Amino acid sequence: MNPELLLSRIRVVLCRPSHPGNIGAAARAMKTMGLSNLYLVAPKQFPDPEADTRATGAVDVLQAAKITETLSEALVGTVFAVALSARQRDLGPSIGAPRETVARLLQEAGEGDVALVFGNETMGLTNDEIFHCQAAVTIPTNPDFSSLNLGSAVQVLCYECRMSAFAEKPPVVAQGVTPFTSPVATNDEVEGFFGHLESVMITTGFYNPLQPGRLMPKIRRLFGRVRLEKDEVNILRGVLASTQVKTGYGRKE
Amino acid sequence: MNPELLLSRIRVVLCRPSHPGNIGAAARAMKTMGLSNLYLVAPKQFPDPEADTRATGAVDVLQAAKITETLSEALVGTVFAVALSARQRDLGPSIGAPRETVARLLQEAGEGDVALVFGNETMGLTNDEIFHCQAAVTIPTNPDFSSLNLGSAVQVLCYECRMSAFAEKPPVVAQGVTPFTSPVATNDEVEGFFGHLESVMITTGFYNPLQPGRLMPKIRRLFGRVRLEKDEVNILRGVLASTQVKTGYGRKE
Repeated sequence: MNPELLLSRIRVVLCRPSHPGNIGAAARAMKTMGLSNLYLVAPKQFPDPEADTRATGAVDVLQAAKITETLSEALVGTVFAVALSARQRDLGPSIGAPRETVARLLQEAGEGDVALVFGNETMGLTNDEIFHCQAAVTIPTNPDFSSLNLGSAVQVLCYECRMSAFAEKPPVVAQGVTPFTSPVATNDEVEGFFGHLESVMITTGFYNPLQPGRLMPKIRRLFGRVRLEKDEVNILRGVLASTQVKTGYGRKE
Repeated sequence: MNPELLLSRIRVVLCRPSHPGNIGAAARAMKTMGLSNLYLVAPKQFPDPEADTRATGAVDVLQAAKITETLSEALVGTVFAVALSARQRDLGPSIGAPRETVARLLQEAGEGDVALVFGNETMGLTNDEIFHCQAAVTIPTNPDFSSLNLGSAVQVLCYECRMSAFAEKPPVVAQGVTPFTSPVATNDEVEGFFGHLESVMITTGFYNPLQPGRLMPKIRRLFGRVRLEKDEVNILRGVLASTQVKTGYGRKE
């Protein structure tokens, strides 16, 4: 299924958020990842200028947010809901890791609307709210400081949603090395560079071919890792030639 | 290697951050994921009460933050640096996806300190700053709204760092390179080589700093692909020094 369509089926539900700034940050986090359905369950203060400020260009997400009294109302029409929870609740759905849980969420989104449910900044979700969800997820944190900001938690899970939705797609950015216009150097061009470098090192006394040691193998190993391009061979040989002009020695090859 | 130890070797470097609130959010994001080394390059306003507020329980990270004038200073001692960039730069390192790039970062952290480098909120990183890094990463976003908050970007990448550090150890990826005994060169050692090469090229007339063109970026791109080892830096500088002895010019650095 089309990744954008899958992402459009994910609701982000914030239960009883205390700080309007966090609502704004959540809206911005959602929109950067291509999500747009924000539900607010009994927000303490909304709308609010601080929410707009933190949302920056995602004010449209705030304006379209649906406000409900209970989590049940926010989940009407969904086929699957995942609760964010820092700890396993007694009898609650077992807690999964983000990547696997989000993969499941996206799979379910193939069937209909789904939800990511976040609790209040200090209290989290109530047991009753968690029981309304079919799965739970925790974001692994430093055990000595697990105080993940609400907006950050939304960001991480929305990021995982986007990564998962687009997983089958080829990467946007080509892997490998930045091409500039130059093609890869041929073997003989690279050998010409090694010969040139060797002659310069002999001239300067850095390299004694009668006592070669492992110098040339080390240099070959170094440049062998690079996959030199034609232009780069020209640059390197240009540098070498310029030192020869200065020393007054002709090129020996 | 112990995951906590690996995470402790990651520096988060914020270049010219404008808003102290984002510095605080970054500190909190780091600490939730077990990172603690924050570097601030020429922050507009720091320390600042707004940074402390947003950091909440991560004020210790702020207090231990190191402030430098330039990115180079922040990278002294690192063996690998990744730049966050929204777009591919001409001649810059090629942009990778977060998961793969962070896996590489963690692998390099086995060798020594590494860095995640973030740009200014509105301007991002300069080309020159990106050229100081060996890899680049982009966080995939909604093409219609890619305005990821700085703190959120730090959160996502620190989260990937934690996920990667605690993941099942992947099989050691063979790079196809013969190891010899030398450890990887640090950023400052590599910079020392670039400085040395530049001075030699100026002396020989190959490089005119008043008309720099794209020579140094091309050279940085070339050696940025290699991951130079300490011994290799010594060899390259040995060759350079030997040409200087012949030309009779002292080293200018």
